[in-house]
Amino acid sequence: MSNPTENKVALIIGAGDSTGGAIAKKFAAEGYIACVTRRDADKLQPLVDSIREQGGVAHGFASDARKEEAVIALVEQIEAQIGPIEVLVFNIGANVPCSILDETARKYFKIWEMACFSAFLNTREVAKRMVTRQRGTILFTGATAALRGAANFSAFAGAKHALRALAQSASRELAPQNIHVAHVVVDGAIDTDFIRTQFPERYALKDQDGILNPAHIADNYWYLHTQPRDAWTFELDLRPWIEKW
Amino acid sequence: MSNPTENKVALIIGAGDSTGGAIAKKFAAEGYIACVTRRDADKLQPLVDSIREQGGVAHGFASDARKEEAVIALVEQIEAQIGPIEVLVFNIGANVPCSILDETARKYFKIWEMACFSAFLNTREVAKRMVTRQRGTILFTGATAALRGAANFSAFAGAKHALRALAQSASRELAPQNIHVAHVVVDGAIDTDFIRTQFPERYALKDQDGILNPAHIADNYWYLHTQPRDAWTFELDLRPWIEKW
Amino acid sequence: MSNPTENKVALIIGAGDSTGGAIAKKFAAEGYIACVTRRDADKLQPLVDSIREQGGVAHGFASDARKEEAVIALVEQIEAQIGPIEVLVFNIGANVPCSILDETARKYFKIWEMACFSAFLNTREVAKRMVTRQRGTILFTGATAALRGAANFSAFAGAKHALRALAQSASRELAPQNIHVAHVVVDGAIDTDFIRTQFPERYALKDQDGILNPAHIADNYWYLHTQPRDAWTFELDLRPWIEKW
Amino acid sequence: MSNPTENKVALIIGAGDSTGGAIAKKFAAEGYIACVTRRDADKLQPLVDSIREQGGVAHGFASDARKEEAVIALVEQIEAQIGPIEVLVFNIGANVPCSILDETARKYFKIWEMACFSAFLNTREVAKRMVTRQRGTILFTGATAALRGAANFSAFAGAKHALRALAQSASRELAPQNIHVAHVVVDGAIDTDFIRTQFPERYALKDQDGILNPAHIADNYWYLHTQPRDAWTFELDLRPWIEKW
Repeated sequence: MSNPTENKVALIIGAGDSTGGAIAKKFAAEGYIACVTRRDADKLQPLVDSIREQGGVAHGFASDARKEEAVIALVEQIEAQIGPIEVLVFNIGANVPCSILDETARKYFKIWEMACFSAFLNTREVAKRMVTRQRGTILFTGATAALRGAANFSAFAGAKHALRALAQSASRELAPQNIHVAHVVVDGAIDTDFIRTQFPERYALKDQDGILNPAHIADNYWYLHTQPRDAWTFELDLRPWIEKW
Repeated sequence: MSNPTENKVALIIGAGDSTGGAIAKKFAAEGYIACVTRRDADKLQPLVDSIREQGGVAHGFASDARKEEAVIALVEQIEAQIGPIEVLVFNIGANVPCSILDETARKYFKIWEMACFSAFLNTREVAKRMVTRQRGTILFTGATAALRGAANFSAFAGAKHALRALAQSASRELAPQNIHVAHVVVDGAIDTDFIRTQFPERYALKDQDGILNPAHIADNYWYLHTQPRDAWTFELDLRPWIEKW
Repeated sequence: MSNPTENKVALIIGAGDSTGGAIAKKFAAEGYIACVTRRDADKLQPLVDSIREQGGVAHGFASDARKEEAVIALVEQIEAQIGPIEVLVFNIGANVPCSILDETARKYFKIWEMACFSAFLNTREVAKRMVTRQRGTILFTGATAALRGAANFSAFAGAKHALRALAQSASRELAPQNIHVAHVVVDGAIDTDFIRTQFPERYALKDQDGILNPAHIADNYWYLHTQPRDAWTFELDLRPWIEKW
Repeated sequence: MSNPTENKVALIIGAGDSTGGAIAKKFAAEGYIACVTRRDADKLQPLVDSIREQGGVAHGFASDARKEEAVIALVEQIEAQIGPIEVLVFNIGANVPCSILDETARKYFKIWEMACFSAFLNTREVAKRMVTRQRGTILFTGATAALRGAANFSAFAGAKHALRALAQSASRELAPQNIHVAHVVVDGAIDTDFIRTQFPERYALKDQDGILNPAHIADNYWYLHTQPRDAWTFELDLRPWIEKW
């Protein structure tokens, strides 16, 4: 699938230190130009450097995925200056649990804006290009909260449900145009600094493969991208073997 | 359940000419003070008049359910001047199908703001009061788009999925506080002026009960409200007998 | 809906001391001839007597719902000698949790035979009559195990999933013939001798309405039966307010 | 993952000419001893020959997967004489649509017996061995009928719902024992003689990758088997890009 001589772009929105970064590294290792974004440029540089040290090609963009004009400009810039976006990975979303009685309107909005509205903006802008080329892959990072609500999860479950609805709607609309849209439910703790420092007991499960390795998550995104179109997967779950679900 | 001598309030957010209005009439007929809202006061007056002509008590409020300050003020006003809100019915939401390629950010946002964000604001404000009284009922009008996405439905399915997530999250949080939260999937054409004038062939199915009668929808909301708490329903679907699903 | 002068029959398959019996009493109280079945005639007599003492009409049939010839004969007998079956309620099913490693083929089969195969046989035989009359109601008692599998539940979850599939398939096939088919998920402990004697701590929740009252379950079956056909419910859940789900 | 020097067995129940055969070939190509079963030994020989011609190791067993004694004996024989069963693939199931009004008890039973009861028997017998070794993979071939019922699908949807319940129950019970259980929804026409001869218009879609290639299905089974256990997939769907769902 990969061909380093072509200038195919994999655009990863929300290329953090964990899942998003691992996905960027994987696509870069497979010959894609990794275009990686987060809001803070400084935090992107180590990822870009790391990909380049491995012999890959990467470009970092400080960009706010929630701002329509920024999204439009970024997609235009990449398509004009770097190459056609073959793959879009949307990987933003954070949960801050709160009782519905105490949830602020600002936070309820922001969780949706970040996890869902941004995904809509990026999907629309990239899909416009993909449709003209009749090819492409769009992958969303979901969560168990996409499947059912829970106490203290009204904001996060709402955003993740809406994201899954976006994935399903887009896949039904775009698959017949040869654009593979898939939603990945990542269910469980991921090997991140956050889990290591905040949930050390959980992190200790790493010794028995009890938390998700970001590189393994990335392998699954790559796998989805390379599926032949006669057998596409639209929804995939990923869980550690000892996870309750 | 109903007792006309008490000043119990049923607050219907989005009391339009069809479902919301019918629900208001039903609760008024059962002895509740119907507090009904929509953005335009003029359109509310016929509903208020109609309830009063039937011997019921009704108050109309022109209020924008998407505005936090307006929602806070409305709930405070009703609780202070009229009576305790025993029932909240959230009934706002409109679908304007559109390809994801053409959907505007403004419309994508507005469909969510109207169908989901408003619901969050109203649920939170009313639930705060209900929790102190350890009683109450909150009912949401959902749609089949809450269950799966579809081509050209990315905005509406997203909003309705998020609304269902709100209902599930709120019910799991509030049921143990004796507050009954339920989500009603209304699937099919409803007997409205809109269907009558825009989809006359569909409307002709009314002769064989092929479209939903708003009064019958309202009966189901009343039924949910009156269920004893040892056997509560959290999710209910309503469809005409000839509806495909 | 009810008219005591007509000889409409409600056939309750699995009319035990709890839910099935309560449903029989409810339909009898509403003017239906209650035809009640279980395998052991002796155990039926108290139910039949109780309905008659309340002024209702009831007939008990010792019949094995898993035997095709018995089901055919029973439906024929009722239709020929008593009246048209207007309502079928299928209420058989028992869970005996077991690790999949230890489950016997005999028990795996029997749990399915009882909860699902019987339902198929009864649905088919009754639906044949209902279709000729273009009217009727068929109600199935489901469980949370119909919605997801669980450790030690492979047999029961399999049978209840299959029952829900039967309900969905039958409803999609028969609703356009004016036959209302619905699946009721009853989730939680029910007020039965079994719970009282085997799970006394659970039973103690009765004081706070924490277990389901069979009479209230029955009210919901009656409600489903009386819904106008422009607004039919196909899936309903019933849970105590304090139940986790 | 594969190591030809070990005598690891992949047992494929229902190794027909299409999906099951392709899965057997894939696992054999990756170094597994393919033990393949179907009821008729004659039909197995071409598959066994084909694997051997490719340099793989294969054994054919004429065995009725619905018969407990036969299943017990087969698993014992393989474990004693060939090697430890590392992978079980269950791939039996056929749909013969029929109105619920006309469905025979015999066919309703047989569809379940074939698609679900057989799966239970094979899962139990193989899982007993896997648990002692604390390793293994069990994969089920599902269908869209596992997710919702449909008119004329009461038997097939029932069997496939029950199979999915088995997969979910087994996965929740066995995953913590390092046994990976997954359910694959294969949705769409597959490149088989049956589709080619019976549905030529459908088969013509092959030119545009509109029907599933069995070898591609097999690749996904292999993929599931090789996932590291910190990121296991429990449910996967496979559909041609132009399939409606």
